[in-house]
Amino acid sequence: MNDPGVLPLSDGCLDDERLARLELSLMAEPGSSSVLALLVEELGGRETVERIRHRDGSLVRVPPAWPAGLTPELTARAAALLSTQHPGAPRWMCPGDAEWPQRLTDLAHAEDLQGLGGPPLGLWVRGQAGLSGVVDSAVAVVGARAATSYGIQVAGDVAADCAARDITVVSGAAFGIDSAAHRGALAMRGTTVAVLACGADVAYPRAHTALIDRIADEGLVVSELAPGSTPTKLRFLARNRLIAALSCGAVVVEAARRSGSLNTLNWSSRLGRVTMGVPGPVTSSSSAGVHALIRDGGALLVTGGDEVAEAVAPMGSQILADVRGEHRAGDDLDPTTRDVLEAVPARGARGIASIAASAGADIDTAMAVLGRLLLGGVVERTGDGWRLTRQAAAAMKTR
Amino acid sequence: MNDPGVLPLSDGCLDDERLARLELSLMAEPGSSSVLALLVEELGGRETVERIRHRDGSLVRVPPAWPAGLTPELTARAAALLSTQHPGAPRWMCPGDAEWPQRLTDLAHAEDLQGLGGPPLGLWVRGQAGLSGVVDSAVAVVGARAATSYGIQVAGDVAADCAARDITVVSGAAFGIDSAAHRGALAMRGTTVAVLACGADVAYPRAHTALIDRIADEGLVVSELAPGSTPTKLRFLARNRLIAALSCGAVVVEAARRSGSLNTLNWSSRLGRVTMGVPGPVTSSSSAGVHALIRDGGALLVTGGDEVAEAVAPMGSQILADVRGEHRAGDDLDPTTRDVLEAVPARGARGIASIAASAGADIDTAMAVLGRLLLGGVVERTGDGWRLTRQAAAAMKTR
Repeated sequence: MNDPGVLPLSDGCLDDERLARLELSLMAEPGSSSVLALLVEELGGRETVERIRHRDGSLVRVPPAWPAGLTPELTARAAALLSTQHPGAPRWMCPGDAEWPQRLTDLAHAEDLQGLGGPPLGLWVRGQAGLSGVVDSAVAVVGARAATSYGIQVAGDVAADCAARDITVVSGAAFGIDSAAHRGALAMRGTTVAVLACGADVAYPRAHTALIDRIADEGLVVSELAPGSTPTKLRFLARNRLIAALSCGAVVVEAARRSGSLNTLNWSSRLGRVTMGVPGPVTSSSSAGVHALIRDGGALLVTGGDEVAEAVAPMGSQILADVRGEHRAGDDLDPTTRDVLEAVPARGARGIASIAASAGADIDTAMAVLGRLLLGGVVERTGDGWRLTRQAAAAMKTR
Repeated sequence: MNDPGVLPLSDGCLDDERLARLELSLMAEPGSSSVLALLVEELGGRETVERIRHRDGSLVRVPPAWPAGLTPELTARAAALLSTQHPGAPRWMCPGDAEWPQRLTDLAHAEDLQGLGGPPLGLWVRGQAGLSGVVDSAVAVVGARAATSYGIQVAGDVAADCAARDITVVSGAAFGIDSAAHRGALAMRGTTVAVLACGADVAYPRAHTALIDRIADEGLVVSELAPGSTPTKLRFLARNRLIAALSCGAVVVEAARRSGSLNTLNWSSRLGRVTMGVPGPVTSSSSAGVHALIRDGGALLVTGGDEVAEAVAPMGSQILADVRGEHRAGDDLDPTTRDVLEAVPARGARGIASIAASAGADIDTAMAVLGRLLLGGVVERTGDGWRLTRQAAAAMKTR
């Protein structure tokens, strides 16, 4: 759906900060130390590396393993990884980069789960689009690896419905529900993001090599782990927090009681995201975990992509409220949204390139804004391009 | 499950009041006039008949049809119906009779639905047991006539699970979910009640003649309509309010959007009963109405009889709390419950007849009390009879 062009390998984040964060990410297992993550958030990566390296006594709770782990070899490896980056291979991006999703910051304020937590120090991203724009309207679709044919069908349907509404489908590329979700989105030429528990250049499971390559071609493959890393049980758990954090909400399709996919929903809930579950036959143990979650009020029952879109729509509705001028204080829309919105016609239709040019925004940004507005029922898509919905056109007139 | 013996044809209600209520029930369609129902509640049936017959000006809002309807022929028909009552045929019972369920009074305080409402003037009951004891712990299991094989299976399972917990299953004897629910209960030798929209001696649908006869043999068949009456659309709607009112809660198994069975759940909700729904495949339109209800918070998701029992258990839990003496004020148990409870041993087991004798209660009453205590986890059943649960025995000791 996007036509963002190739991003530069680095933009906002300074080179030495980028290197420092990469060193730290090579030193510690992902998500294993929210203390480290919070230190980096407070001091920055470079300062944290300096203090660890010099065993700065003012830094409390620095485990002995940290200084011991920050070896010259590790620094050399980090530098080599950065210097050999090339298009097509995963790129290391950090807070400060334009494509860093602001949403990940929520992880800094969430309680640990099973000893894991904290925002990622950086992310390896494989694919053309900018991550931030891609996950602007994103829903995680997760569930059992050992899915039934019913679950596979429903996950594919839900993902396809989301894709048709320009909602990005985030999942973990695993067997069962995950791959059905990615395929459902790809089939609709929608955008999908796979978050892996191994290097973004590693195909795990191996049987999904072609699928993961396809996701990298059409969407994004994301990981906290350096290229070549293999998955472990803890890395899967740490990965789940990223699937939750990158999305506006998460839907679980089939999960037995105590299924690992419920761990992702747990993270979504901690992060204040919308949590949803698709019911199934009560005679199927593959749906028992989902039913228990809905019963306990841990998830909203959804039966399809339309209801998923409705559940995550508040972010859009807010925009419509702003468009309607319901906030009397005046113009609460951010300037970019306002500029894009003013470029969308009430009659006829206008192409994305023309809207972006009018708004003085790049195409990627314009698309992200239009996606939000679409979700909020402010704009609609025709064969010829974009226009305001009747509702929004009326609201704009009376502003 | 009960062994109540044959009840007398009449007990608490006076003969002329019984006749008057029957006359009025023959005059008006069931549930069609909550004004009439409330008048009767306030003045009694006899006084209402008198005032209508003499066109008493102080009686406001008496429609002209009422005096016109109370013909001598109608009075003669009512008298004939009462004089020809015999065992096996439906008996006319009224408020004041021991078997009149107190719960029906809730209908006097509920808002009308689709122009229908109000408590029944009396009920025709076919079967041996006393209605009040039978519905003391009762759950309505309702749903689509055009059920799928999944729905039929699940309704039967839920009803069987309820029956195994001595919860009476109330339904409408219709095709699909209703009959599956009755059969599920009957198969477990549980108690089941069919509430009909025609005379309690009429088999509707005709294909369920044998099933309805069986329900009358093992449980009860109930109706507001005089023997021989045929069903109409309005009578089905009026009947639904009785299914809801006679039960502690209602479960819907399969209902398409706008299904008639949702009308019963609506009544349950108005009457403050627990409303529950069993989910199904989201690919089945037969479950769409149930899913919508759960989504909107109109029903609790349940996946089996254990969860149904848990949902209606608060009536039992309250008793356990009372047994535990959590209400410091002292003995909050009603005297009958206390007497039955004192007769249940902590070790070994005791039969129902012996418990009833000790408590100075009849067997029907003792069974009803034990059913409540069973549901509340206070007593349990062994092959040899009844005993206190370990939890309750401990609570009793510390009182």
